[in-house]
Amino acid sequence: MAIRTAVIGYGNIGKYAVEAVLASPDLELAGVVRRQVEKPAELDRILVVADIRELGDVDVALICTPTRSVPEYAARVLALGINTVDSYDVHGKLADLRRELDRIAQRYNAVAVVSAGWDPGTDSMIRAILSLMAPKGVTYTNFGPGMSMGHSVVVKAINGVKDALSITVPLGSGIHRRVVYVQPDPGADFEYIEQQIKNDPYFVNDQVEIHQVDDVGQLMDAGHGVVIERKGVSGKTANQLFKFEMRINNPALTAQNMVSCARASVKQKPGAYTMLEIPIIDYLYGDPETLLRQLV
Amino acid sequence: MAIRTAVIGYGNIGKYAVEAVLASPDLELAGVVRRQVEKPAELDRILVVADIRELGDVDVALICTPTRSVPEYAARVLALGINTVDSYDVHGKLADLRRELDRIAQRYNAVAVVSAGWDPGTDSMIRAILSLMAPKGVTYTNFGPGMSMGHSVVVKAINGVKDALSITVPLGSGIHRRVVYVQPDPGADFEYIEQQIKNDPYFVNDQVEIHQVDDVGQLMDAGHGVVIERKGVSGKTANQLFKFEMRINNPALTAQNMVSCARASVKQKPGAYTMLEIPIIDYLYGDPETLLRQLV
Repeated sequence: MAIRTAVIGYGNIGKYAVEAVLASPDLELAGVVRRQVEKPAELDRILVVADIRELGDVDVALICTPTRSVPEYAARVLALGINTVDSYDVHGKLADLRRELDRIAQRYNAVAVVSAGWDPGTDSMIRAILSLMAPKGVTYTNFGPGMSMGHSVVVKAINGVKDALSITVPLGSGIHRRVVYVQPDPGADFEYIEQQIKNDPYFVNDQVEIHQVDDVGQLMDAGHGVVIERKGVSGKTANQLFKFEMRINNPALTAQNMVSCARASVKQKPGAYTMLEIPIIDYLYGDPETLLRQLV
Repeated sequence: MAIRTAVIGYGNIGKYAVEAVLASPDLELAGVVRRQVEKPAELDRILVVADIRELGDVDVALICTPTRSVPEYAARVLALGINTVDSYDVHGKLADLRRELDRIAQRYNAVAVVSAGWDPGTDSMIRAILSLMAPKGVTYTNFGPGMSMGHSVVVKAINGVKDALSITVPLGSGIHRRVVYVQPDPGADFEYIEQQIKNDPYFVNDQVEIHQVDDVGQLMDAGHGVVIERKGVSGKTANQLFKFEMRINNPALTAQNMVSCARASVKQKPGAYTMLEIPIIDYLYGDPETLLRQLV
């Protein structure tokens, strides 16, 4: 039986999530939940509602809202006994979110997969595998160059910002520059905007460079990437060298990872999980023994 | 309480396995099991026995025998109620071994981790993660250049071979050349040896080049590597590009992976598992919530 999946929110990730659900042989799109019920053309044959309860039976909901409203939405959906998958991206707070949703999920007999994007998400899985292979050593995660959706959303939320784009540039050894392009509202106070950006927790630890532009739309490219490097020790043997690199469409990868987590969620016991806490094979479509013959 | 771990076999991997157990804060070396009980100097303070039952309580045994005798040793140890970890490397047969050991492990209330090296093993985990990120597409695994222990052991077992070394050279797109250096016994029939190599299942699918040499010892280097590449589709978005590369000491990595699996084994329910079937976090030392804060 197909896994009936709802997409909550129809922004950057939500659009790709709809595509990824439709491309998955074992998932069925129950519909899209968004405040604005008027449909863009591509949702023509898809049910769009304002409340998930209007979609009938739903097994899993992909929470594609801005990250800051994920905790509230996830809690509400779990309380309906529906599994949730989110891509909550605040690294410092996700263990707390996991704990909070674990309590709710257990109570309502549902499963929450927390922070199921690519970082946190699949990058976290790669980092953990590098650690199991070489327990001592240092891992560097170098993002970009590419547009950070999370950082761009934070800037767009500032008063006086009409549109914005934050590009992450890797400087090596896990150090980054954030290059922010801001299109202000007419008459907006640009210095105030700059201060707000620099003081935001998303930016406060990085080198930040801010540019005022006339049209952010001209700069948009959803491509992103990462290089994860580790030099470490296996047993007593040093100089074990590892490198993982990807160049990807950012929202497409986030959405696909969430869809793979939706599939995994229906195989777990009630509770909340990060991607590190689920056996890898559960994310994949197909007969487990056939998968073992193909992948292992 | 420390996980009491035995190392069965003291060849190439067994030596590094002893080091990796000693380097793990949560593991305790119960001893080494080998036919020849005389000790080399580095085992001076370590219990060496001919039968694992002489080691008292043992939680996990690392089966470091040649791959072809793994099924027999694993079955025998599991029947004592002791968990096993092996690095069985015959890709085409490991799903069958898993099934066979699953039956025995369940019966004796133990856990078997099957094919827990790097390929099969951690490379399989990487390939599976690439598949969950981009379900459609092709993955190429390019080994080397480096010495293949499995292939070298096969050649050494041929009649008339005094010593041998098989080097794997990547030709791209997952195609490999096997370059085999053979030091024959005096008066051995080299053509017979060549035929035996070319007809062995380990070599039959690859391009093979065989050289006769006077001293294989001069060519030995335990370094190895792999490049795993995938170009695939996330949802409906093509050109998602992934690459994993490592340059490592081969037996040291195999041994460390087996040790990380020993740790994971004590957290699983009775049965047999490949590395794809265990949550990644279980392989790591430390408090799970602290690990989530560090890695995710």
